[in-house]
Amino acid sequence: MQNITITAYDWVPDFAQGHVRDLRVRWALREAGLPYDVELIEQGKQTEPGHLARQPFAQVPTLDAEGAALFESGAIVWRIAERSPALLPGDTADRDRTLSWCFAALNSVEPFVAQLAFLSIFAREREAAARIVPQVTALVERKLSRLSDALGDSDWLVANRFTAADVLMVTVLRDVPEDTLAAYPTLRAYRDRGTARPAFAAALEEQMQPFAEHAPRYEKAS
Amino acid sequence: MQNITITAYDWVPDFAQGHVRDLRVRWALREAGLPYDVELIEQGKQTEPGHLARQPFAQVPTLDAEGAALFESGAIVWRIAERSPALLPGDTADRDRTLSWCFAALNSVEPFVAQLAFLSIFAREREAAARIVPQVTALVERKLSRLSDALGDSDWLVANRFTAADVLMVTVLRDVPEDTLAAYPTLRAYRDRGTARPAFAAALEEQMQPFAEHAPRYEKAS
Repeated sequence: MQNITITAYDWVPDFAQGHVRDLRVRWALREAGLPYDVELIEQGKQTEPGHLARQPFAQVPTLDAEGAALFESGAIVWRIAERSPALLPGDTADRDRTLSWCFAALNSVEPFVAQLAFLSIFAREREAAARIVPQVTALVERKLSRLSDALGDSDWLVANRFTAADVLMVTVLRDVPEDTLAAYPTLRAYRDRGTARPAFAAALEEQMQPFAEHAPRYEKAS
Repeated sequence: MQNITITAYDWVPDFAQGHVRDLRVRWALREAGLPYDVELIEQGKQTEPGHLARQPFAQVPTLDAEGAALFESGAIVWRIAERSPALLPGDTADRDRTLSWCFAALNSVEPFVAQLAFLSIFAREREAAARIVPQVTALVERKLSRLSDALGDSDWLVANRFTAADVLMVTVLRDVPEDTLAAYPTLRAYRDRGTARPAFAAALEEQMQPFAEHAPRYEKAS
């Protein structure tokens, strides 16, 4: 994969900083040792036709490269993994397992975590949302309990080595409230093992860097 | 892919009948013309160690075949697609687009649809949930609007031909409340185009068939 360009935002509100999904792509590319350029999109420009043609939901990230054009962080991370032994084992069974865990992170775990975040942060009906939080927290906990059992005493989800599935699952776990995750020390240690990787730290710093630079314009505008 | 066995439930409650995710896998296998066996799992047995080893979240479907072992409907459908021109175009750009739309269906659309279903059907705090439904409906509508624009006047999401992405997106749209989907005639027609396919109808009938047979035991037990 050559001449890679990804998209990210030039600024997002505080709550989203460090959590925009280009983080996953930056992390994966850095683990894979693939250089890339970043095209920063100004807030408001993500709905322009040129961007919608590559990202139908007016979001980031996207990836364009020689012979590759993708949207959705899961799709992008998987394609990167297919090109990098740093993210995907060679053994067929391990590759299947990695693919399964990639989808599990984004379709069996993240939706519940995101629902909890919605109720806790974004729901306008604050009092009603608070009454539903306990039931959704229990759903999240059921997923975390299964995930903790599956991880067991392994460092990583597949074949006891770091894979693309860990890029996705660790970023999902970063969005679990700390007091909820605290009941699963295995998972807290797993998340911390992931975020301690140099490629993660560099990806996070890189996402954050433009936000400070562009903040004055957006904060003035709001 | 040979000697394929998938897992499904022998019975589920009414609200889930016709919506369990093995439907996607059956549909994809039938479009691909790949024969398969079904192992029916009794309710309560999905948490046994043998099943947890292949499906860490105690769910269905799974797929086992010669040289393939997967869980998560998205992962399974994608692997089937990679082995079948009926589900995946040969052109590289179209393949990337199909992969992107597969993840979009399950990570950008389904979580909002599922959240709406949760609030409408499963939330125990009925009155509180009802107060949050309008905001979540608006989130679903925003996704549907973008999806409708992206589909435009094409019959299918990618290269104007049926792909694995349609298997996933059509099954997601089946869970959108009818009155919400009605505002997007393009999407309603798209869903109906998908569910009119013989492979879909056969898959649905096949999922439903054991439920009637096993109902007496479960209904007696409850």
